[in-house]
Amino acid sequence: MTLKVGVIGTGMIGQDHIRRLTQVLSGAVVTGVTDIDLERAASAAPMGAQVFDTPQALIGSDEVEAVVICSWGPAHEEQLLTCIAAGKPVFCEKPLVTSAEAALRVMEAEVAFGRRLVQVGFMRRFDADYRRLKAVIDGGTLGLPLMYKSVHRNASVPAGLYTSDMPLNDTLVHDADISRWLLNDEVAEVEVRLPRRSRQGCDLRDPHIVLLHMVSGVIVDVEISVNIAYGYDIRGEASCERGVAALPNRPATVISDAHGIRQAIPEDWRERFLEAYDQEFREWIVAASDGTATGPSTWDGYAATLVGDAALRAVASGVREPISLIEKPALYGPPVARAA
Amino acid sequence: MTLKVGVIGTGMIGQDHIRRLTQVLSGAVVTGVTDIDLERAASAAPMGAQVFDTPQALIGSDEVEAVVICSWGPAHEEQLLTCIAAGKPVFCEKPLVTSAEAALRVMEAEVAFGRRLVQVGFMRRFDADYRRLKAVIDGGTLGLPLMYKSVHRNASVPAGLYTSDMPLNDTLVHDADISRWLLNDEVAEVEVRLPRRSRQGCDLRDPHIVLLHMVSGVIVDVEISVNIAYGYDIRGEASCERGVAALPNRPATVISDAHGIRQAIPEDWRERFLEAYDQEFREWIVAASDGTATGPSTWDGYAATLVGDAALRAVASGVREPISLIEKPALYGPPVARAA
Amino acid sequence: MTLKVGVIGTGMIGQDHIRRLTQVLSGAVVTGVTDIDLERAASAAPMGAQVFDTPQALIGSDEVEAVVICSWGPAHEEQLLTCIAAGKPVFCEKPLVTSAEAALRVMEAEVAFGRRLVQVGFMRRFDADYRRLKAVIDGGTLGLPLMYKSVHRNASVPAGLYTSDMPLNDTLVHDADISRWLLNDEVAEVEVRLPRRSRQGCDLRDPHIVLLHMVSGVIVDVEISVNIAYGYDIRGEASCERGVAALPNRPATVISDAHGIRQAIPEDWRERFLEAYDQEFREWIVAASDGTATGPSTWDGYAATLVGDAALRAVASGVREPISLIEKPALYGPPVARAA
Amino acid sequence: MTLKVGVIGTGMIGQDHIRRLTQVLSGAVVTGVTDIDLERAASAAPMGAQVFDTPQALIGSDEVEAVVICSWGPAHEEQLLTCIAAGKPVFCEKPLVTSAEAALRVMEAEVAFGRRLVQVGFMRRFDADYRRLKAVIDGGTLGLPLMYKSVHRNASVPAGLYTSDMPLNDTLVHDADISRWLLNDEVAEVEVRLPRRSRQGCDLRDPHIVLLHMVSGVIVDVEISVNIAYGYDIRGEASCERGVAALPNRPATVISDAHGIRQAIPEDWRERFLEAYDQEFREWIVAASDGTATGPSTWDGYAATLVGDAALRAVASGVREPISLIEKPALYGPPVARAA
Repeated sequence: MTLKVGVIGTGMIGQDHIRRLTQVLSGAVVTGVTDIDLERAASAAPMGAQVFDTPQALIGSDEVEAVVICSWGPAHEEQLLTCIAAGKPVFCEKPLVTSAEAALRVMEAEVAFGRRLVQVGFMRRFDADYRRLKAVIDGGTLGLPLMYKSVHRNASVPAGLYTSDMPLNDTLVHDADISRWLLNDEVAEVEVRLPRRSRQGCDLRDPHIVLLHMVSGVIVDVEISVNIAYGYDIRGEASCERGVAALPNRPATVISDAHGIRQAIPEDWRERFLEAYDQEFREWIVAASDGTATGPSTWDGYAATLVGDAALRAVASGVREPISLIEKPALYGPPVARAA
Repeated sequence: MTLKVGVIGTGMIGQDHIRRLTQVLSGAVVTGVTDIDLERAASAAPMGAQVFDTPQALIGSDEVEAVVICSWGPAHEEQLLTCIAAGKPVFCEKPLVTSAEAALRVMEAEVAFGRRLVQVGFMRRFDADYRRLKAVIDGGTLGLPLMYKSVHRNASVPAGLYTSDMPLNDTLVHDADISRWLLNDEVAEVEVRLPRRSRQGCDLRDPHIVLLHMVSGVIVDVEISVNIAYGYDIRGEASCERGVAALPNRPATVISDAHGIRQAIPEDWRERFLEAYDQEFREWIVAASDGTATGPSTWDGYAATLVGDAALRAVASGVREPISLIEKPALYGPPVARAA
Repeated sequence: MTLKVGVIGTGMIGQDHIRRLTQVLSGAVVTGVTDIDLERAASAAPMGAQVFDTPQALIGSDEVEAVVICSWGPAHEEQLLTCIAAGKPVFCEKPLVTSAEAALRVMEAEVAFGRRLVQVGFMRRFDADYRRLKAVIDGGTLGLPLMYKSVHRNASVPAGLYTSDMPLNDTLVHDADISRWLLNDEVAEVEVRLPRRSRQGCDLRDPHIVLLHMVSGVIVDVEISVNIAYGYDIRGEASCERGVAALPNRPATVISDAHGIRQAIPEDWRERFLEAYDQEFREWIVAASDGTATGPSTWDGYAATLVGDAALRAVASGVREPISLIEKPALYGPPVARAA
Repeated sequence: MTLKVGVIGTGMIGQDHIRRLTQVLSGAVVTGVTDIDLERAASAAPMGAQVFDTPQALIGSDEVEAVVICSWGPAHEEQLLTCIAAGKPVFCEKPLVTSAEAALRVMEAEVAFGRRLVQVGFMRRFDADYRRLKAVIDGGTLGLPLMYKSVHRNASVPAGLYTSDMPLNDTLVHDADISRWLLNDEVAEVEVRLPRRSRQGCDLRDPHIVLLHMVSGVIVDVEISVNIAYGYDIRGEASCERGVAALPNRPATVISDAHGIRQAIPEDWRERFLEAYDQEFREWIVAASDGTATGPSTWDGYAATLVGDAALRAVASGVREPISLIEKPALYGPPVARAA
């Protein structure tokens, strides 16, 4: 009844998921770990877990029923294909893979296998605020959504490690995925506009305005600011035909003092999405225990990859860059709607 | 490593805790259940759990390492004493017991045992909003607390089943306990004032204003409204020397429509305190696995019982009713401070 | 068509009203001023205004059609009686007078005159937030009001000048008057409770909790904190049978920065009630131009005086102090309702 | 000391300004009115005001020191030129004029006159919320502004009378002007994007997203929705280098009832900007009494006209449409900054 999980990659996020699986949630036990740094793997391994020399060995072990991939992006494709070949459910942190071609290869393998095995780490879909927002939009009392405004603000990003392309090929995937999910829609075209540059992140291109033109005609208007200093501030607002629905302030003590009447803002994504990560794995454990996957799929990882690619092209071109999705395999749900 | 838990009482709240222990949290397994209605116990028993004929049999079983009491209040004393005699950690839903004398007997037994075994079900202490509020008060940047305003509003209470004394001997315990905890204080005297009566709960005495005079001099000002129709609305605000700290609105989609700009209010305590219940048991499992208890103690259950008793006397007398606590056993922490 | 106004008392508040009458509002011109300090009067006099040696001379002048009294409290009675004797409309800053007996004498004179001439300076009744709140309560969709919570917080009061009795005989009048007005009710009894004393206002008795038991049974629960450091924070909330209505935050830029998401709080009563003062005089000019008065009346000033007196007695006695109003003269509206 | 004002155009807005000048504000008297419908003019004329047969007669009268133009747009140019020729201060409701060429002619005349005489009716600049927002941005503690988001939502527009071009050549002027003013900047280029069309305003192109590329590089991101049903909702948010500043909710009673915790939204622009209109005229009276004008100028009316024209071109072209301003006459302040 308890799912035996192997974890590939024991860096910060891998260690956090091990903690989550062993100390927070029910239904799973970590039986195996591996990492390119085997010492790090050994020190991260919880009691009773075996340290495997390679991802392949871990995936192939009888003591591993399901896999969590927290390695770096370029390693994902091979590890995912190995999991699919072994028929084992796999949770893969974003990015799914690092190119559209790789995404197609993983999708082809999963479709050939005939059952969903892959869940991609788009944790926002498991956040209670976003789920309530989607319920309101889907409920339809406000009419159809016409615009969605997504604000994605980071207090800061590591100088040097975080480059000017990353707002578009790394950070934007969350806004792209959550917009697709909230709106039950796909991105058709991407535009990027560059406002006056912030002096906070010296050599970085920041902030960005990204317009995602959805197949339905809805326009998603994204602000990405990665060095805004004051906190990690995630906002979302859907303008519908007869009303507007928006994410609330985060719950925080309402303090009245010399700074005014105020509520603290989360410092980073860990604080903001703590419960969402828990819920993400809670649902993964349930599905993986049934030998399958639910939640964000290979298709979603593929679509997000194409948005990032198009956004980078759009910076260079200055115009709308179209996105060409393949026909959606039935495994991933109903076909993509066409514009009216 | 997994705590074997027996559950006494499989009514609504007992079933909910079984669900929590088996499907939500890690570290525990329900190995035994019992109820005065054994059929109900059998149908509530999760896979692999034994149905015991009596609480005594359940508590005495080698397959039960820790106990959750969800039976009705008058049965608690005997069940708690049996758990303590067996040296088994026990989570007891409120009320701890139904009289101050019973509370003293349980406390005496636990003190004699020499280690805390009992955690009382005051779930508000595990709520993230209350924890943040306490951190602000304890942090001291606003100075000392001088007043605390607690608002306790129920949409409705079951006509007939909920009587006029229950706002004071049932509902008030949560406000009393959370005030004691937030303020690191004890209640010294209780006053009750009766505003104009609401016509919503026809024959019920409702609402109540309760003033808890704390040992420190802080006055806790409680509004209890049990038929306010619009929702379950729990508020708390501490007026300190140099500022004010209050619980926030609950996170809910911000909707702009014909009703204004608005956020939904929880319907009931289940919705409001869902995560608090989870956290309450998460921490209980950790402590019980170590053979002990943390969180709200027998002392806290005793103190809350005295507040309810005094509040009922205060309705009749119209004046301040004093509370006489015994000297606090060292097992329950530092002695009660005296007023300056 | 333009009302000729004489102003008695040209201290801070008098000067502010002169500015208001001459520079902000239409329909009035200041034709006369006087003060116990005639030099101050001369320097405060707007162009074209005569400086009178005495209040009596000012009130008696043909160039003065209506009077604004901003002198100190003990001088009010005689000045009011002189205005009434002259049949001239008069705006009188609070306190109306300094004793219940004096209030009765003024009331007797006005009743004998047969038409309202006096408007008392309870500016909160002209504040848009309070007016909207009253409209919601009066509208009745939330049912009858059962409790009203009034919070009155001053950043600081002048040490030495502001004494321990002033929260009750000076500050409280605003909460008493606005409660009477919002609830269409009178105060029947007053209780005072003293929480732990703040160290901000060293030798001052602060804060206070005041319970006003209204004739209808509604309880008004007032917090008065006069040295809370962070700002001038006025709150009001009516708990009704089927819902709650409260004053909003004051409009202020919503700033997200290192201190959180926040709005500034007014610094003092001038900032908070600026527009209310304007509206108060706008309506006074209209009524005075018709030779009469509307808004807060001599009766309201009398009732507020009795509340302050009872509150001081209640501090000393510790119990409910009753208020005995005379029978309400028809000039001031319908008789006081009796409790059900 | 009292400014004698003549009002041209006595439709709804003209009547409202007559009420404002005669009943609300000090310092002005309406001495003349005219309208293409002289009967309407006669019935709108306050006591003592003369009805003139033509605008020219009104402007030329010795009994008129300053003029308020509330006629329809195409008549503005001639009336403005007549006022300037007469050297009389003039308040002109928007639009200043209906073409860039006309604006240039008015500007030329005013510059030749050598002193500002014209104030354009951009009332948002007089709104307290906007003024506080500007103070925060100008204060600089949040760093430089990088983006400004302007939301302009109308509950509904009159079917038939309001056409698809009007969001851009009528409604947008307010967002354009307020952005220029808040940011101390000019619009360099305009883009328009058309989201999925709302079914609320059947045949209307609605909503619009407009991007104003400012000379400084700041991007102003405007949502215009003119049939959103739920109210008149005006929002503004500046994303700066180290923080964000936004307009607050409008003050409205906070009601907790079956619809949640909520505040009403203004129904229309009259309710939203009531106090702003008062303040606008208060300041106009002061300047006009000095024989000049302050506030939004002919230059501002000219710049707003160009934005509307460019926006209409941008709908057709789909690309960025540049704006070419003439060199700014010194009369209207410092020259336009160039991009870094």
